[in-house]
Amino acid sequence: MFISFEGIDGSGKGTQVELFLDYLERNGVDFVYVREPGGTPIGELIRNILLSSQNMISKTELLLFLASRAQLVETVIKPALAQNKTIVADRFADSSVAYQGFARGLGVETVKRLNDFATGGLKPDLTFYIDVPVAVALSRKKHFDRIESEGEEFLNKVRQGYLELLKDEPERFVLINGIADELTVHRFIVEEFEKRRKK
Amino acid sequence: MFISFEGIDGSGKGTQVELFLDYLERNGVDFVYVREPGGTPIGELIRNILLSSQNMISKTELLLFLASRAQLVETVIKPALAQNKTIVADRFADSSVAYQGFARGLGVETVKRLNDFATGGLKPDLTFYIDVPVAVALSRKKHFDRIESEGEEFLNKVRQGYLELLKDEPERFVLINGIADELTVHRFIVEEFEKRRKK
Repeated sequence: MFISFEGIDGSGKGTQVELFLDYLERNGVDFVYVREPGGTPIGELIRNILLSSQNMISKTELLLFLASRAQLVETVIKPALAQNKTIVADRFADSSVAYQGFARGLGVETVKRLNDFATGGLKPDLTFYIDVPVAVALSRKKHFDRIESEGEEFLNKVRQGYLELLKDEPERFVLINGIADELTVHRFIVEEFEKRRKK
Repeated sequence: MFISFEGIDGSGKGTQVELFLDYLERNGVDFVYVREPGGTPIGELIRNILLSSQNMISKTELLLFLASRAQLVETVIKPALAQNKTIVADRFADSSVAYQGFARGLGVETVKRLNDFATGGLKPDLTFYIDVPVAVALSRKKHFDRIESEGEEFLNKVRQGYLELLKDEPERFVLINGIADELTVHRFIVEEFEKRRKK
């Protein structure tokens, strides 16, 4: 089973991923955790470029994310799925659609098509989208990297991009209210996971 | 005017680029030289990953070249063309078609489409393709980087890929016989350049 977590920076996604991994560990689930960009030696080198470079144009940014993703899918995710492991991904292809396709204006369909090339069409079975208003997200984060520091208007567009994705694939996405306290959110995620897992 | 040089590793392309740049300098042509991958601060970081990483899958390789190319087009080539400068590129989008599209089997049409995304459809006005048999190329090179060290069969495919491209765009490409001695090849390149320049 391939599970991804999505959300704007400051949504509490990172915390929820950690709580979920703890849950899997306590319950003896054989899982692999990956993060984007990164998750492979090559991907981590790409991550360094993405998070620190100046004057990067949107297309370059997207193509670097895709390069990292292609390597991750082929060398980590597919082999793990072939061994029936559970994959937990902190961000995956939907991030590119919301951030680069929608918010940066490269086009939702264009980015979906490029994602399909990079992933060979692989999609998560289940995606937890943790939704918070941008004002809440901004109040939570203290340190921002290059992409995160785009400001309120940008994050509003990213959020809107995610909500469009949810409309298109209501089966795959689970909308999580990220305003609730951490443990409430966590319990909801676990409940959904267990429901899907038993299917 | 945007001029690119293409050819398999060991074709003598690098030497011809240098001789051509010397020629432009002596003749007071205002030019910008770029190389791929690289040519921008971000591109040079990408170049390091491309030339040294282990276990890189073909799609990742292609996407990294495209990322470098997108940055190069937008921040260097387009501004220079807007100032009527002559651009001399040691490799450009055709390399991806020949190497990744044809030789690595990602598909010529797929790579052309992805190139168009990365470059916004920008193509060189003139492309010198320096053709040598693979045996000659291999006998010339002593040190090979990761991509260059693929061997004879791979380079044969790359060469075949280039020759297919030439068939499709006979106007843009100039086929150069790279077996001739350096100065003969150089004179032929200069002659073609001057002919096109006057048009």
